[in-house]
Amino acid sequence: MPHITLPEGIAGIVGPMTAYPETAQHLNGLAEALLRGPSSLTSAERETIAASVSSGNECYFCTQSHAAAARAHFGEAADLVDKVLADRCSAPVGEKLQALLEIAQKVRKDARSVQPEDVQRARDAGADDKAIHDTVLIAAAFCMFNRYVDGLATWAPRDPEFYARMGRRLADQGYHSSDHAPA
Amino acid sequence: MPHITLPEGIAGIVGPMTAYPETAQHLNGLAEALLRGPSSLTSAERETIAASVSSGNECYFCTQSHAAAARAHFGEAADLVDKVLADRCSAPVGEKLQALLEIAQKVRKDARSVQPEDVQRARDAGADDKAIHDTVLIAAAFCMFNRYVDGLATWAPRDPEFYARMGRRLADQGYHSSDHAPA
Repeated sequence: MPHITLPEGIAGIVGPMTAYPETAQHLNGLAEALLRGPSSLTSAERETIAASVSSGNECYFCTQSHAAAARAHFGEAADLVDKVLADRCSAPVGEKLQALLEIAQKVRKDARSVQPEDVQRARDAGADDKAIHDTVLIAAAFCMFNRYVDGLATWAPRDPEFYARMGRRLADQGYHSSDHAPA
Repeated sequence: MPHITLPEGIAGIVGPMTAYPETAQHLNGLAEALLRGPSSLTSAERETIAASVSSGNECYFCTQSHAAAARAHFGEAADLVDKVLADRCSAPVGEKLQALLEIAQKVRKDARSVQPEDVQRARDAGADDKAIHDTVLIAAAFCMFNRYVDGLATWAPRDPEFYARMGRRLADQGYHSSDHAPA
């Protein structure tokens, strides 16, 4: 049961966002800019970083939602997301995304542990400043979204089809529509 | 040295926010709503929670900035902030803020560790749903701001007067002015 009164039957972060729209508008705006705005990273790559960080934080709702969004963006290559979540370091996602996923996990655990060598590895694989910035801020932002979801003990459905539908909506329509979860 | 190119001589989170305004606008909007918008908690209490979480995450820039903002809000009771940062559990801040600071630290470490008893303790001391919501989201948000600052290895001045000036500006003018740090 959630720690505060939330609208019934509304899953995950959408509950507190519905109840507290004055902060929700900024959370949605941030998710839209970070995951779908202009970037040298694709939305598929950015949603994969979001899902990987959420998985590291063991946030079920955010992991399932953003893995589904990443699958929807990847299309025929959707199984890449599952390979990242199952065993990140062996997933065949290419050296650039591998290096960025490593930076994201370091930011998640202790942001001060990101080393110049980690960043150089990403640069050598083609990441520019914007890609590194976005990776750090996506990892940081999901450390927030995950905690918002779990710190209030929100309800997370277990039906995979629920998340598949949400993933398609997020990929197609983004984070500004009022009935869409940002996390 | 920061991991990406940032404008020189601009401290902490203000560097990446200046370089990446498309996400900064939402980060500032969130800080303004969370720390200064309508709430059953005072801005002094909310900035103290922000400083306590930042201190737990050992983020020097955010700890100093928000401790200074909390001192500015508290006025004559400014030393309460230092007592919280020195030894949270013995600080004479009253049972409600004590209970909320405990929830905030649990959210910081592992949001799933917040127990119904933690929330009940805060309610018994007068916290309403909005206070509990704001505490969880402030703690979550500073887990983001702290990581954004430290994951990019931004520059943090060591001059206490720098933070005292920033704290007064944040308390007086908030997080919307372009030359103010949100964290």
